Amino acid sequence: MEVTVLYSGGKDSSLAAYILNKLGYEIRLLNANFGILDSWRHAEEAAYAIGFDFEVKKFERKIVMEALEMILQDGYPRRGINYIHRRVLEEVAKEYDIIADGTRRDDKAPCLDLSEIRSIEDRYDIEYIAPLRGIGYKTLNSLARMCYEFEEGNALLKGDYESEIRYLLKSEGKKEEDYFPKHIQTKVIRRI
Amino acid sequence: MEVTVLYSGGKDSSLAAYILNKLGYEIRLLNANFGILDSWRHAEEAAYAIGFDFEVKKFERKIVMEALEMILQDGYPRRGINYIHRRVLEEVAKEYDIIADGTRRDDKAPCLDLSEIRSIEDRYDIEYIAPLRGIGYKTLNSLARMCYEFEEGNALLKGDYESEIRYLLKSEGKKEEDYFPKHIQTKVIRRI
Repeated sequence: MEVTVLYSGGKDSSLAAYILNKLGYEIRLLNANFGILDSWRHAEEAAYAIGFDFEVKKFERKIVMEALEMILQDGYPRRGINYIHRRVLEEVAKEYDIIADGTRRDDKAPCLDLSEIRSIEDRYDIEYIAPLRGIGYKTLNSLARMCYEFEEGNALLKGDYESEIRYLLKSEGKKEEDYFPKHIQTKVIRRI
Repeated sequence: MEVTVLYSGGKDSSLAAYILNKLGYEIRLLNANFGILDSWRHAEEAAYAIGFDFEVKKFERKIVMEALEMILQDGYPRRGINYIHRRVLEEVAKEYDIIADGTRRDDKAPCLDLSEIRSIEDRYDIEYIAPLRGIGYKTLNSLARMCYEFEEGNALLKGDYESEIRYLLKSEGKKEEDYFPKHIQTKVIRRI
């Protein structure tokens, strides 16, 4: 069985792939890119480091522009990020039978609610797996440290939705920190 | 690292233990028993079949009597079952550092909400893991079939909360089927 894991290169999506691989799935990592930056290269680098297949899938720029609009309106990223994530899952669900991501228990975004998940599973007749959904941050950190070495920082070059949105915010003369609360980012360097 | 997994002998808690073991945890299966029936023997049998350590922990009869009261009031088991599960987790959290269960994405009971989970983690300074929380029934069935052989039926002898509650209902002259909707139960027979 093959599972397609939405992949940014960060700790969470890397750990999700690791767990699914341990359960016997073959892993295909997929990075969503909206043509704003070539940030998918950072995800590819991490994918190579942990030894799983990787592909980048290009999405309409329109999706990220709509998300940007929501973020500017709201003053924080939750709704916009969730919108992108849902659109990405819907597109990927058209192509693959089993899809997964690194959303976790304590995440506010990206995070779909149960009715959105079931709707995607039913409409596209697929299985959606979120292996970290029942895992808190403490457990997650100790598991991640067991399998991967990663770097941490405030402005890591990553392949997540945030990278392209931050670039767009700057292009419009906005301050990123007015919209994205400070948080530590991670990027996987190697498998242990 | 050792994890204590609340265990009934059924498909879900067996799969939760399997996943955690694959991630490198040593497994201790724990069955909660309220002194009504010796139904823990069925859980012990399943634990032996899948090769993990097992213990039975005795709880106050009072807890299951309170749950019974709720079920009689409500006409369905959700609130009562969730009450037992929360009380059991709280007791187990006093003894062990990492605890887990087989609650899954599509379950209504037992199932704690995020604030209850965090409250237990914080009050007892433990980690709580629900490995099936991000997994739907389709994926769950295909994973379970890959690791275990199990029997299915309507009135299996099991070590779950339901067994003791059903017995109490009958003792009070009530019809079980008025309170528990018909559902297929599973019990693990062997590891594949």
